[in-house]
Amino acid sequence: MNYTIQASASGEFDDVVEATITALEDEGFGVLCDIDVRATFEKKLDENFQQYRILGACAPGLAHEALNEEIELGALLPCNVVVREADDGEVVISAVDPKQLLSVTDNTALDTVAGEVNDRFERVLAAVDDS
Amino acid sequence: MNYTIQASASGEFDDVVEATITALEDEGFGVLCDIDVRATFEKKLDENFQQYRILGACAPGLAHEALNEEIELGALLPCNVVVREADDGEVVISAVDPKQLLSVTDNTALDTVAGEVNDRFERVLAAVDDS
Repeated sequence: MNYTIQASASGEFDDVVEATITALEDEGFGVLCDIDVRATFEKKLDENFQQYRILGACAPGLAHEALNEEIELGALLPCNVVVREADDGEVVISAVDPKQLLSVTDNTALDTVAGEVNDRFERVLAAVDDS
Repeated sequence: MNYTIQASASGEFDDVVEATITALEDEGFGVLCDIDVRATFEKKLDENFQQYRILGACAPGLAHEALNEEIELGALLPCNVVVREADDGEVVISAVDPKQLLSVTDNTALDTVAGEVNDRFERVLAAVDDS
């Protein structure tokens, strides 16, 4: 199943990460969590891995609305945007598809919030895409 | 749909958070992300909210195996454990059900990893539950 929406960029990895964070902030998301997967695997497993960052994005107003509707929802939050090196040298930016993610809840009252997050993520991806 | 597995504890909130982190570490999880939802809502929205923490738990070996199987999976990681105040004064600990979460991928090759994370989460919850 396709559970992400994607863009690609040809710049330096760190620059694409910064541009993605800026684009998220422009759409009202704070990055509450920033996991450097490569560094974690190197430190914990002594394994090489491609550049791979998981940015946990949260729009506080939307998160508040969603948690008031469904208090368990934090188990699925924040919504992630992955920035990673691809084999062809491009940098891929993948946002989780909020509608797919929230489909796990079977709570249609969350559809509006999921749609709003989706629209914002589409604009974030359009802002960083140069393919 | 039920997408979490739960326990409850009667201690102080901060003590339960600490006990949960310790129990996660005992099962090989690092807490790569720790979001204080109440503090975020207070700061960003000037709204009161119950005590609510989202702990992003990652077992590096399992994450490495899963990402090698499916590179987009970071959009759904880490696996969260929520610790929150309930209305009755209890502290509820809710781990995302990894099988439900990974069902979004439709990739049966991830079933073994999901089962292993599930087993570890069940032991974490048993360790902190005093209901």
